[in-house]
Amino acid sequence: MNVLRHIDSHMDDLVSDLQTLIQQPSVSAKNEGIEECSILVQKLLKKTGVKSEILRLRKGVAPIVYGEIRSKQNSSKTLMFYNHYDVQPAEPFELWDDPPFSGTRKGNKVFGRGAADDKGELITRIKAVEAYLKTTGDVPCNIKFVIEGEEETGSMHIEEYLKKYKRKFSCDGVIWEFGYVDAQNRPIIGLGMKGLLFVELSVRESIRDAHSSLAVLIKNPAWRLIEAIKTLRDSDGTILIKDWYKEVTSLSKKDLTIIQNEPFDEQVFKKEFGIKSFVGGKKGLDAKKALAGEPTCNIAGFVSGYTGDGAKTVLPSEALVKIDFRLVPKMDPKKQVSRLKNHLKTKGFSDVNIKVFHGEAAARTDSYHPFVAQVKDAADKSFGKSILNVSNAGTGPMHPFVEILKAPCISIGSTYMFSRIHSPNEFARVDLLKKTTKCMCLIMHNLGINQ
Amino acid sequence: MNVLRHIDSHMDDLVSDLQTLIQQPSVSAKNEGIEECSILVQKLLKKTGVKSEILRLRKGVAPIVYGEIRSKQNSSKTLMFYNHYDVQPAEPFELWDDPPFSGTRKGNKVFGRGAADDKGELITRIKAVEAYLKTTGDVPCNIKFVIEGEEETGSMHIEEYLKKYKRKFSCDGVIWEFGYVDAQNRPIIGLGMKGLLFVELSVRESIRDAHSSLAVLIKNPAWRLIEAIKTLRDSDGTILIKDWYKEVTSLSKKDLTIIQNEPFDEQVFKKEFGIKSFVGGKKGLDAKKALAGEPTCNIAGFVSGYTGDGAKTVLPSEALVKIDFRLVPKMDPKKQVSRLKNHLKTKGFSDVNIKVFHGEAAARTDSYHPFVAQVKDAADKSFGKSILNVSNAGTGPMHPFVEILKAPCISIGSTYMFSRIHSPNEFARVDLLKKTTKCMCLIMHNLGINQ
Repeated sequence: MNVLRHIDSHMDDLVSDLQTLIQQPSVSAKNEGIEECSILVQKLLKKTGVKSEILRLRKGVAPIVYGEIRSKQNSSKTLMFYNHYDVQPAEPFELWDDPPFSGTRKGNKVFGRGAADDKGELITRIKAVEAYLKTTGDVPCNIKFVIEGEEETGSMHIEEYLKKYKRKFSCDGVIWEFGYVDAQNRPIIGLGMKGLLFVELSVRESIRDAHSSLAVLIKNPAWRLIEAIKTLRDSDGTILIKDWYKEVTSLSKKDLTIIQNEPFDEQVFKKEFGIKSFVGGKKGLDAKKALAGEPTCNIAGFVSGYTGDGAKTVLPSEALVKIDFRLVPKMDPKKQVSRLKNHLKTKGFSDVNIKVFHGEAAARTDSYHPFVAQVKDAADKSFGKSILNVSNAGTGPMHPFVEILKAPCISIGSTYMFSRIHSPNEFARVDLLKKTTKCMCLIMHNLGINQ
Repeated sequence: MNVLRHIDSHMDDLVSDLQTLIQQPSVSAKNEGIEECSILVQKLLKKTGVKSEILRLRKGVAPIVYGEIRSKQNSSKTLMFYNHYDVQPAEPFELWDDPPFSGTRKGNKVFGRGAADDKGELITRIKAVEAYLKTTGDVPCNIKFVIEGEEETGSMHIEEYLKKYKRKFSCDGVIWEFGYVDAQNRPIIGLGMKGLLFVELSVRESIRDAHSSLAVLIKNPAWRLIEAIKTLRDSDGTILIKDWYKEVTSLSKKDLTIIQNEPFDEQVFKKEFGIKSFVGGKKGLDAKKALAGEPTCNIAGFVSGYTGDGAKTVLPSEALVKIDFRLVPKMDPKKQVSRLKNHLKTKGFSDVNIKVFHGEAAARTDSYHPFVAQVKDAADKSFGKSILNVSNAGTGPMHPFVEILKAPCISIGSTYMFSRIHSPNEFARVDLLKKTTKCMCLIMHNLGINQ
């Protein structure tokens, strides 16, 4: 295929454009270089032959760079590449071997903040389109680029953008902004992400801390909070809130097959964390099923009273716990919040204050959807092998894409799993950038021929 | 009585000597001025006519200033004044209106670190002996001064001193180093203090923190610790550890009468802490009984995971709780530790680590003991009124005195309850120093005539 050969012979161009992108800092957390980077991304799209525009909601919201190219064959299929041009802060600078915004190449690696997350991913997609245009003068399906600038600060406005530009963004499949490649060079094809509900529960029993000798009379908020949260979960991890699992559906037969085929080295995992057994005594397939499809109630933080060294006989006035609940498809964060509130009230804990920080529904693409097979085929051809994953155990803002665009959404990309994303000396591997660019071409091809 | 008149006419001397004492910093926590202050105390005793010596255990342990004067009437009774010449650090200096070691007098108040705790108390006792010697040439009973230098750092060696000098220190009654005077100028005559067992329980589930998405597999130490400590106590405050209360005896009839007569303004107390009800719904006499005689299990601190602002989806590797148990007479801290250990083991929590920080048994002087009536009579005469208190709700190292010297031990002194001890602008009230000095004379008198 000429397209793939073009990629082989133009890797220096790809690396050079990636370096240009890295050299433009775009730290959303500090509002540093955001506008400049959006303009640079537009230039890259233009050079490739993709028309683009800047979409804006209002002042103070980072713009989306939107690019579009229609297939001259009047393809009825449209593929969306969702990416982001913003990066994490590069601090601590002193831990970088090379300046974080230099884009230094050393052999097979390009170093820099954003090298992998997400400028490396973005460049593979732009270069895949370019390879098609340069060799065939066309693309096998319509392509839409949605490149946002607030991913690293929580994609606070992506849902609003998706709603506003619902028609403009309509498509038949979304390729998610990132994707991991494992230690054996197998890309992980992710079909979903769990949802998340992050809450803070607190109890205040008195207006000030007291000498602990007064514990005979003054109630202790830590005891009270412990009594309250002890009712949320049993020791096997089962959540005891009424109707918590009501909408949860079981995994499909295909999902189960995918999970069975997923590699998971229990011993390596256990050694990594120094643990002997899993929650609830889970083993083998049950452990893998839990990663893909089990809701959790996790204490992310607990604090009350004196937490320094040694002894201090204090009776604290307040206690606070941070809990994150991972959600699976069909669980509505808002509904779950009201179930939690209702639970506490019913159990007699109306005095426990609830603060909701974050609610994000889970997203999962049906493993029977033809787009899954198309992506899998492309990945197998470009990488030699690939792994399907029913759902990442973590959370990302995938739900609004699935919900608003009604399109399957799949995560696949070039990021080696130990690429130090969000850390000093982040890097992208040139061999994986090449394979991923080819993979993106094959995805376009597969979608295009399946009219 | 000439002795009391002598006190009236020599208050300037008392204040001047107190100022001299304050002007010699003696911060045990920083080992600042300890030796110098012990020499100064010896000089004051010498000036008074009391022979003294420096007792030492070994290098690195603050010396005790020991003073003794025998009654020429060959009294068979001996009174001990237990005090300390060390003080708390004065920081933060900037919050003091006058330099903390100046001993500035303003009207009825003498300001300075140690003005009340414990140099003010010490001076009343020295001046009481002086008043007797100056006016009668004798003391009505034998007097022993035991003045230590490590009280503010936890009296770490007082037990060793008491054991080593058991015969030298033998006496018929101990006047404790401090005593409070309430807002209505009534001295509180304290007959005891609760004991304390301070422990740290911790659980480690893995060798490092993990992303909270892994909570489906990796056990959460905060959940585990909560499950463990939830078994220690019911929501009314009753401790559920087997045999925890085994040795606890009920309050005597006299104790109950004392408690009934003790003033306790429930409404003022509740307002002070902004609370509406007490632990277990206690009211009136039950609340007062709890303060004097109820063991507690208090969470002094709890920490695990992320405790800063906002959300962080972390699965902590470790959780830690600090618990202080207040003990009542007959409860042996060592025995209670083994009961706690046994409880956790029996309940299946052998993985919970236990670190014992502090064990101090309770002390309580029998309210029927004649020394109690002698002190009460002296306090009533010098202050016009006084209040008996069966036990302070807090803890102090009173137990070794009671246990080793087999003597009744009573807390009475000149410290106004809002004297800002341990805080900036600590002060002593001159009117109370006078009344207390007289009270000490009357205690000596009452003990002397009751041969």
